[in-house]
Amino acid sequence: MSGMPGSDRPILYDHPFSSAAYRVRIALGLKGIAYDRVPIDLQGEQSGPQYRAINPQGMVPTLEIDGHRLTQSLAIVDYLDAHTPDPPMVSKDPAKRSAQLAMALIVACDIHPIAAMRVQRYIVGTLSADKDQRAAWIDHWISGDLAALETMAAEHAAPYLCGETPGIADLCLVPQMFNARRFQVALDDFPRLREIDAALTSLPAFAAAHPNRQQ
Amino acid sequence: MSGMPGSDRPILYDHPFSSAAYRVRIALGLKGIAYDRVPIDLQGEQSGPQYRAINPQGMVPTLEIDGHRLTQSLAIVDYLDAHTPDPPMVSKDPAKRSAQLAMALIVACDIHPIAAMRVQRYIVGTLSADKDQRAAWIDHWISGDLAALETMAAEHAAPYLCGETPGIADLCLVPQMFNARRFQVALDDFPRLREIDAALTSLPAFAAAHPNRQQ
Repeated sequence: MSGMPGSDRPILYDHPFSSAAYRVRIALGLKGIAYDRVPIDLQGEQSGPQYRAINPQGMVPTLEIDGHRLTQSLAIVDYLDAHTPDPPMVSKDPAKRSAQLAMALIVACDIHPIAAMRVQRYIVGTLSADKDQRAAWIDHWISGDLAALETMAAEHAAPYLCGETPGIADLCLVPQMFNARRFQVALDDFPRLREIDAALTSLPAFAAAHPNRQQ
Repeated sequence: MSGMPGSDRPILYDHPFSSAAYRVRIALGLKGIAYDRVPIDLQGEQSGPQYRAINPQGMVPTLEIDGHRLTQSLAIVDYLDAHTPDPPMVSKDPAKRSAQLAMALIVACDIHPIAAMRVQRYIVGTLSADKDQRAAWIDHWISGDLAALETMAAEHAAPYLCGETPGIADLCLVPQMFNARRFQVALDDFPRLREIDAALTSLPAFAAAHPNRQQ
């Protein structure tokens, strides 16, 4: 872990498989903001004092930009929308914007954190969940609220969750769908989300942000 | 559960002890927006088809306002900031705003959802967690990231988390501190948060939104 003193480019403290960092990589890509990556090892470095001095939660991502040190993926995306307004990540219409944020927050608050690796580790290590119980846990928390998102997608989307251009809900959806597949969650009941996900992942900014391309 | 046809006042689908609904009650109070409450029973009505037609996640809060039906507490607060800009829930300065949102999101994404009642029920009912394991779960997920918030509070706050007037991080903090106390989480290590919480709860909008006053 090392900063890049002297560089004016933003620095993203990152991990390929962090869903939250993946969101920010997409946003940076959509806005065409060049940046440098500092990979953080999630097996220990993340929680150590050196990285906690940068991010008090000991989580990725952190973005250093314009002399600021920003944390929490959706708060970073909000800043990026002020930094480089085009393309916007949310609508200017307050009700549309609220609906877009609600879809993003379903993923960011109610799906991802509960199914996340640190919680998986706790139920296995402390609550002695076995392999099947861990798989059922992941499936339960991902599928339950993806069903709600599928319903909302039918009301709002064309062709993306945020409408005609990808926005904040879309950059939450794609990492969540990646995560669901990674943990073998069945996605048969979510045809609309699969369709939107397929359309999004073919876009250059989404493709470049994919975990397998962060070497 | 019944709507109030003919009324122009916003309708909040609410439960006294929902941390997310509590946030919205505070925001409505700070902005002086009068509203009607529709209490939702969280023991079953919340997940039933009638309420799911209103909120696909089967969760509170939902706010009906200006002909819109809004979900997810922070997305609702974002709308309220457009509806009634004064007092603002976030700074106009992009970096300050991002820091305020980050503190709100630590509570809304990384603390509350994991320690929430539906997850407590799952670890007890499905993973057979006993009383002590349940208490340890709640303590672990609340204390861990409150520590990060305590660090950030020392950097940002005076006298509230959002600065000189209460904002989006503050309306997340107070319900989370209430929840921590409700579940006997020790708060000794968070003197700054306790100080901010005490200052906030004495304000009329925060006092009126308290769970014990929703009869």
